[in-house]
Amino acid sequence: MDRHFADSLMAAIEEKGSPICVGLDPRLDRLPANILTDYGPNDPLGAVRTYCMGVLQAVAPVAPIVKINIAYFEVFFGAGVSLYYELVHHAHELGMLVIGDIKRADVGHTAEMYAQAHLCDPPKSSPPKSGPPKCGPPDSDPLESVSAITPKHIPDAVTLNAYFGIDGLKPFIDAAETFGRGLFLLVQTSNPSAVEVQGLRVHNGETVCEHVAKRVEEWGSGLVGASGYSSIGAVAAPHGAESMRKLRDRMPHAIFLVPGFGAQGRTAEDVAPCFNSDGRGALIAASRSVIYAFEKDQASDWVQSIGRACREFADQVGVLVK
Amino acid sequence: MDRHFADSLMAAIEEKGSPICVGLDPRLDRLPANILTDYGPNDPLGAVRTYCMGVLQAVAPVAPIVKINIAYFEVFFGAGVSLYYELVHHAHELGMLVIGDIKRADVGHTAEMYAQAHLCDPPKSSPPKSGPPKCGPPDSDPLESVSAITPKHIPDAVTLNAYFGIDGLKPFIDAAETFGRGLFLLVQTSNPSAVEVQGLRVHNGETVCEHVAKRVEEWGSGLVGASGYSSIGAVAAPHGAESMRKLRDRMPHAIFLVPGFGAQGRTAEDVAPCFNSDGRGALIAASRSVIYAFEKDQASDWVQSIGRACREFADQVGVLVK
Repeated sequence: MDRHFADSLMAAIEEKGSPICVGLDPRLDRLPANILTDYGPNDPLGAVRTYCMGVLQAVAPVAPIVKINIAYFEVFFGAGVSLYYELVHHAHELGMLVIGDIKRADVGHTAEMYAQAHLCDPPKSSPPKSGPPKCGPPDSDPLESVSAITPKHIPDAVTLNAYFGIDGLKPFIDAAETFGRGLFLLVQTSNPSAVEVQGLRVHNGETVCEHVAKRVEEWGSGLVGASGYSSIGAVAAPHGAESMRKLRDRMPHAIFLVPGFGAQGRTAEDVAPCFNSDGRGALIAASRSVIYAFEKDQASDWVQSIGRACREFADQVGVLVK
Repeated sequence: MDRHFADSLMAAIEEKGSPICVGLDPRLDRLPANILTDYGPNDPLGAVRTYCMGVLQAVAPVAPIVKINIAYFEVFFGAGVSLYYELVHHAHELGMLVIGDIKRADVGHTAEMYAQAHLCDPPKSSPPKSGPPKCGPPDSDPLESVSAITPKHIPDAVTLNAYFGIDGLKPFIDAAETFGRGLFLLVQTSNPSAVEVQGLRVHNGETVCEHVAKRVEEWGSGLVGASGYSSIGAVAAPHGAESMRKLRDRMPHAIFLVPGFGAQGRTAEDVAPCFNSDGRGALIAASRSVIYAFEKDQASDWVQSIGRACREFADQVGVLVK
């Protein structure tokens, strides 16, 4: 397998010029008004699909990678999950890498199932079934058939929760190695109550998340690429420069996926300590401040507003690594 | 809202006579041979559907509740997730309660989306769309339309991961209260590497999972029902009687969902300490030892084998609470 997630990501950041990740988490109540009008109350998923396609188109020239949060699609049940895979495919078609923000965790054979569903190449497509040709209402699910899913429908990396320890991660690590994909393990999250568990102080004086950070570096040691970074990265939200330095020290080879920029209030200054001294090693994520930019910019087309906001986001972060 | 998950579960256990939970996690490679033959290689989901319907039918007379692990359905992408919801509905039709084993975790609005997808009553159904009537191949997704999901398709409780602290759980706790459903929070899992994070010793000498256990009792204090148990329970696997006693002491009002019976090797003796002194407060789960019982019993019909294995499982556990 010549493909390597961390190397591909580093090359994509180099090419697009800024280490940003746009989060796609569409809220029905915040879609552009004209889309909601066009689809009406009976086809919410059609509206979400059109909006997401527009967002991907708008950010593709600037963003090396997008993060698609599956929760916003699971809320539409099976058909929503099919749309999630369709959007992963569409982002790939537009030349972007994709993080599937799934935050899954389980053990044993269940973890294997999650890895198969979210990180492995799908089983070879079966020939189409005999029987009457498919027809149905406009929203009928294009990915209804299991065999319609191709490797291009599978994200390049996924987010995972490490509460189970290595047992829950091994099938994903194996899949990452086999298929050249990657993982971002939850280490320190951006929410206020993160400290309730992640911030617990362990006997040796470390916090739980600092301890998890050391394990992430170990687990990722076998997947370090030519770029010097591992395909096993970490979700690491800044809780002050000191806490970030402690995480950076423990995970020199991990790419940090850094949430909370923009709408969640973090600034370029806050996220600067997430980078290594060479100006690499972090991927700064923003969602609402980019994908809902049209709310503050009624004058122009919503796709153009999102594209402009994405460019500004890229410039703000870009100066950190110049 | 008069419905209360813990009270409903206690009543169902009383009625069926044994505090057992059958786990439904179908592996394609272990389905009865005749089912695989009937459906052939091009319709794996049809085979899984028929098998799961048979398992539910077989265990319904004995099991007060089943646990459906969504990972085994996600592996079939959107159509698989639709089948998951269909099976929740079918289990309800058969008079059983259902735990959706989803192990989700996220924060803020994303947690709200997961709660909406997995624990809230769905939005009121929209009128069917105009356009040609739906037709398609036999496997076309019956729940493709978002509006086809009803409250009966939603499980009575879900499993969640507490790594984010209360922020990630609040939307689920609110949904549990509003809709009379419940939660099982991961406290101590059954896998060998559970100790890597859950077993870390915190400054006060407690382990991380013992600390989480105290929070579970706090978080659940507002949802204690007439039965004396809270609708916020805990996934708590025995790692020896002493560790179980420590968890029981910290969570007197929590129902323990106890994995690992049967195939994972735990015996009635191992799980006995999971119960309170009144013989209540634990739900013993088994999956493979029941749902694949026909593998060791080629002589008889697979549905009958599963039914017999479920009865034996119920009897083994039942003696603990007599």
